[in-house]
Amino acid sequence: MKLTILGCHSATPKTTTHPTAQILEIKNHSFLIDCGEGTQVQMRKYKVKFSKIKRIFISHLHGDHVFGLIGLISTFRLLNRETELTVYGPKGIKELIVTQLRLSESFAGYPIKFHELSTKKSELIFEDKKVAVYTIPLKHRIYTNGFLFKEKLGERKLNMTEISKYAEIEICDYQNLKNGKDYKLGNGEIIQNKNLTSDPNKPLSYAFCSDTMYHEPIVPIIQEVDLLYHEATFLKDKEDLALKTKHSTAQQAAMIAKKANVAKLILGHFSNRYKDLNEFKIEATKEFINTYLAEEGKTFSIG
Amino acid sequence: MKLTILGCHSATPKTTTHPTAQILEIKNHSFLIDCGEGTQVQMRKYKVKFSKIKRIFISHLHGDHVFGLIGLISTFRLLNRETELTVYGPKGIKELIVTQLRLSESFAGYPIKFHELSTKKSELIFEDKKVAVYTIPLKHRIYTNGFLFKEKLGERKLNMTEISKYAEIEICDYQNLKNGKDYKLGNGEIIQNKNLTSDPNKPLSYAFCSDTMYHEPIVPIIQEVDLLYHEATFLKDKEDLALKTKHSTAQQAAMIAKKANVAKLILGHFSNRYKDLNEFKIEATKEFINTYLAEEGKTFSIG
Repeated sequence: MKLTILGCHSATPKTTTHPTAQILEIKNHSFLIDCGEGTQVQMRKYKVKFSKIKRIFISHLHGDHVFGLIGLISTFRLLNRETELTVYGPKGIKELIVTQLRLSESFAGYPIKFHELSTKKSELIFEDKKVAVYTIPLKHRIYTNGFLFKEKLGERKLNMTEISKYAEIEICDYQNLKNGKDYKLGNGEIIQNKNLTSDPNKPLSYAFCSDTMYHEPIVPIIQEVDLLYHEATFLKDKEDLALKTKHSTAQQAAMIAKKANVAKLILGHFSNRYKDLNEFKIEATKEFINTYLAEEGKTFSIG
Repeated sequence: MKLTILGCHSATPKTTTHPTAQILEIKNHSFLIDCGEGTQVQMRKYKVKFSKIKRIFISHLHGDHVFGLIGLISTFRLLNRETELTVYGPKGIKELIVTQLRLSESFAGYPIKFHELSTKKSELIFEDKKVAVYTIPLKHRIYTNGFLFKEKLGERKLNMTEISKYAEIEICDYQNLKNGKDYKLGNGEIIQNKNLTSDPNKPLSYAFCSDTMYHEPIVPIIQEVDLLYHEATFLKDKEDLALKTKHSTAQQAAMIAKKANVAKLILGHFSNRYKDLNEFKIEATKEFINTYLAEEGKTFSIG
C-alpha cells in the first residue's frame, strides 16, 4: 500500500502549496482522496495515471477539498474515458457536479455514480474481495467524513517445502490449501493445513482524517491502523483558533495517534501562515514519536 | 493600457499550460477576463494584486473559462475582502457560483453583483467617465460573448507654452480649456481653444474574442481596435475540427484581424496537441503581419 500526497495545505492554493488531494494505491486500486483546485495538474506533475482512478472519496464540500473535482471530471471526458467513475462524498456532491455540467452544457460522456453520504455513524461504503472502505465521522464546521481503508485478510501462504514432500498434492489442490482446508492423503491420513501453509500477511490499513477538530470518538474506529493522516492546521499557540474553526493542532493530532495506538502518523492541512513546518513535527513528537510531515509529491509506503 | 496573459491554452490545465485568464489594466481598472481552473495561482505567480480586481468578465460557461471563479471568490473572502465584486457573464453564472457557495455552507462575506448576459447583440455593459465595455456576440457551441474595452476620449491637453503668454489665464480656468472652451481676455478678445490646447490622446481599445468559430459579424464591432485577442485553437490542417467544435484556426483569426483593420493581433487558446506554437504565427502572418502569440506571464502594452 502506498500513499502519495498531491496537496497538503489548507484553504487557498498558492504557487508552491496546494490544497488537499492524495492518491492511495491499495490492492490494484488507485483511490483519489479529496480534490482541491488544481488537483488534476498535481496528478500530471506526479505522474498519476488518470485512467487508474475509478473511485474518488471526498471528505467534505469545503472548496479546498472539492473545487478541483469538476475540472477533473471534465478532463476525464476530454481524455475519452469510458469506464465508470464512482464519487463518494457528502449529500449535495451530486448537485454540485451536475449543476456545473448542466450550466456548461457539458456531459461526462462516461457513467458517473454518486454515492452520497449522510449518516453520522461509521459505515462500510465500498468493498471487494481484497479491500473495504469505511467512513470515519469527523467533527468540523460542515458534515465531514474521514475514510478508513482496510485490506482484507488474504489467503494463507503455501509452504512449498512441505507441500513438495507429498507427491500426490497437485496444483489444483492449492486453492483449497490457501483457503485453509486440511489435506486428506490417499491412505486416509489427514495433513493439517497449518503444516502446509503459513499465516497470510497482516492486512494493512490507512485512516484519512481531515478536516476535524480534536475528536476522541474516532479513536476506536482508527485503532492500530498502520498509517494515520490527521489534519494539523495549527500549532498549539493557535489552539483557540483551532477550536473556533473546528480544526486541530499538531499536538491534538498526535494525541489521537497515541490514543489509537497507530503505527505511524502523518500531519497535513497546514495553514499557510506557517513558514517552518518542522515546528509541527517538533510539537507532535512530544506526544507521539513516529510522526511525519505530509509533503507535496512525497510517497509513503504503508506496512 | 496593458494586457497580461495568465493562461492561453484550451481545455485541460497541465503543469506548463493553463486555461484562459487575462488581466487588462485600463485607466486605473484591473479587469479579470475569464477564469479557468488555477487562475488564482497564476495571479499570485505573476503578482496580480487581488484587491485591485473589482470586475470580472466571463465569456462563457465552459470549464476552461470559468472553473477557477469559485476558488477565486472564496479566496477573496479568506483575504477579508470587503469591496464589492461585479461578475459579468452568461445567464446561469449566478446559479453556478451561488450553488457552490450554498453547498459548501460558505458565503462571500463581501457584496457580489452578477450582471448576467443573454442578448445576442453587442451591448454596453459597463462605463464610467474614462472607460466603456461592450459585449461582442461570438459564435461557439454555447452562448458566448467577447468583450470590447474602450477608453473614452480624454480631455484636451493644455499647451502651457501658449497659456503662459497670457498672464490673466489662471489655474481655475484650466478645466474649461481642457473641456474645449475658448478663452475671453479682459479686453474682449477671444483666444480660440485650439491655440491653447492640443488634441487629447487617441482613445485606445482592446477586443477579446474567445471562444468562437470564424464569424464575420464581429468585424464591424472590433473595427480598428488597437489590439485584438482572437482565439486560434487549431492550425489550418484541422479546419474541419475547428468548424465542428466551433473554434477558429490561426488563419481565420488573422482574416478577421485583416478585415477589421486592427493594429495588432494576439493569438491564443491553443490546443494542447501543438508542441510548436510558432506554426500559429507563421500561418497567421500570411494573412496579417502584425501577429503575436499569447504567452503565459507576458504583458503586452496597448497603444
